[in-house]
Amino acid sequence: MQSRLDKHELDALLVTHLPNIKYLCGFTGSAAVLVVTQPKLLFFTDGRYTEQARNEVRGAKLAIVNKSPLLASGEALAANSKTWGVKALGIEGDHLTVTSRRQLKKVLPSRIKLRESPSLIEQLRIIKDADEIRLLRKSVAQGAKLFDVALKTIRPGVSETEVAAEMEYAARRAGVEAMSFETIVASGPRSALPHGRASRSAIPRRGFVVCDFGVILASYCSDMTRTVHVGAPGADARRMYEAVREAQQRAVEAVKPGAKLAEVDGTARKLLQKKGFGRFFTHSTGHGVGLEIHEAPRIAAGQTEALQSGMVITIEPGVYVPGKGGVRIEDMVLVTERGCEVLTPTPKELITI
Amino acid sequence: MQSRLDKHELDALLVTHLPNIKYLCGFTGSAAVLVVTQPKLLFFTDGRYTEQARNEVRGAKLAIVNKSPLLASGEALAANSKTWGVKALGIEGDHLTVTSRRQLKKVLPSRIKLRESPSLIEQLRIIKDADEIRLLRKSVAQGAKLFDVALKTIRPGVSETEVAAEMEYAARRAGVEAMSFETIVASGPRSALPHGRASRSAIPRRGFVVCDFGVILASYCSDMTRTVHVGAPGADARRMYEAVREAQQRAVEAVKPGAKLAEVDGTARKLLQKKGFGRFFTHSTGHGVGLEIHEAPRIAAGQTEALQSGMVITIEPGVYVPGKGGVRIEDMVLVTERGCEVLTPTPKELITI
Repeated sequence: MQSRLDKHELDALLVTHLPNIKYLCGFTGSAAVLVVTQPKLLFFTDGRYTEQARNEVRGAKLAIVNKSPLLASGEALAANSKTWGVKALGIEGDHLTVTSRRQLKKVLPSRIKLRESPSLIEQLRIIKDADEIRLLRKSVAQGAKLFDVALKTIRPGVSETEVAAEMEYAARRAGVEAMSFETIVASGPRSALPHGRASRSAIPRRGFVVCDFGVILASYCSDMTRTVHVGAPGADARRMYEAVREAQQRAVEAVKPGAKLAEVDGTARKLLQKKGFGRFFTHSTGHGVGLEIHEAPRIAAGQTEALQSGMVITIEPGVYVPGKGGVRIEDMVLVTERGCEVLTPTPKELITI
Repeated sequence: MQSRLDKHELDALLVTHLPNIKYLCGFTGSAAVLVVTQPKLLFFTDGRYTEQARNEVRGAKLAIVNKSPLLASGEALAANSKTWGVKALGIEGDHLTVTSRRQLKKVLPSRIKLRESPSLIEQLRIIKDADEIRLLRKSVAQGAKLFDVALKTIRPGVSETEVAAEMEYAARRAGVEAMSFETIVASGPRSALPHGRASRSAIPRRGFVVCDFGVILASYCSDMTRTVHVGAPGADARRMYEAVREAQQRAVEAVKPGAKLAEVDGTARKLLQKKGFGRFFTHSTGHGVGLEIHEAPRIAAGQTEALQSGMVITIEPGVYVPGKGGVRIEDMVLVTERGCEVLTPTPKELITI
């Protein structure tokens, strides 16, 4: 971390994005600021989190303050800017509001200049270590169990929210902290909405049901999608499902260290184009997953970086025909030394209910 | 709205906070920008929300764009700044990141100056109209039903997350969109944590259990807290509970148009001081509730504004004795023409389980 500060000519970094704070020092509460200076880490939170901070925070000096942790961190920087040698202070531009920046600036002396920092910590977080991979495996396994619950609940006439309710109830009872995003249960024509969170609509007698869901377990997210068919699928529906399944499989096979992100995306996209579904695949192929449900890298056109061992990503092509229906299949995949390992244990053959 | 722009010498306001967008034009999706210029409202979203925007948005001209709605709105302002007469453009400083502001500035001509706007829309939102009050009543009623679920589930040995699971399951099945915040079930010594979200801890044989929860129904939030006692309460526990109950009741009685916010807070605080619990009441007495779970006004020391008819607020004093336990009692209250109406229908006598 500190060599990265040097590289970007920053004397210190003010970390305000909570997943980054959790990553660097372990804190999971909802109000904190971490100051990374060249020799040390300084952690600021308020009185509500005294006990939690003492239990969780590792490797940082604690300050429990009776004001906003951001202003307290600014005042500490102001008081110590000479001792600590802080002139260029990096801020996380994507995670600091215009108002917070102005309030911070007011308590800082003019010799400290604020600089919008590149995503230094997000870059570190791309490669998961052994502990993180272990936690991600557990989160994926717990998430996958919810698909069995969905299969038991999906029936014509049952509302999408009832399916989501059963899945979330099972998750909560299993001890997860939360769902990692709003559960998507999108049936019939709604399956053509890529972000069709569960609605009060009843599942129709015939058509696809897209289920996209995940859990947060020990702070790590999981994410998977399976699409089932209610009633006997016609030839068109089968063709669409098999095209997505093949595109997903080909993209998974393209995952290995050194493969360009855009190439993996292109693998799924070309297959779907060949099958005549190209214009119905309207989003990118995947994204990193870890402490956040969407994190770097993006598996998308134009992304020139390469995959590296230790990355954990989703592979999730989909086809959405407006007014008719849609199919998406998504696994979480670990990039290994030689290729990849699909973490999601769930089969991908078309299930008819 | 537009007279408020004049008053603050703004030619237009760029609205990026989603609850404010929902308030002004009805959209409930997760990606949009609204430009309020003197003669018109311009709404920008991306292709994922085409259908939803057409169904929901009222009173604004729609633009469906294939890039970030923020940048698209900036480009539209750049192209029309002369026709629309926009020189001073207000931004919501609490809801725009430093990076977004920089990216926006890049597409705007230099003749458009960005100004951090006061919370104009939040100020409008403080007073609820008849439709909003009707929706808030429904949300409160639905939330209150979950307390019955909690009462059926709370038993020694049951984990806090199991109680939360049952409550959230009942809420989902009743068709709510989501819980309005992470459900708090804090038992035994954990009841002394004001923000003790449900953990895997088992409910002990004896002690308080604080349940703080709410739902989002038709976009409107509810919020309530009840504290029960497992096992027979001792004299100390009874005294603590009754002090909070009396403080809550007195504060509710102080709610009427013209009462200063700080006075309502002071009413609860003085009663708890008199009973010897003053230093254990470590937060403010309440907050506004509406499209967001925490909104203006704040019922706290130092707040000099007065309550007005049509405000909907919480009254929620609490006492937290570290290592021992805590009590909080919270209702939602509507400020009426002559006084107030407690919306939460649930009794406040101490329940022993």
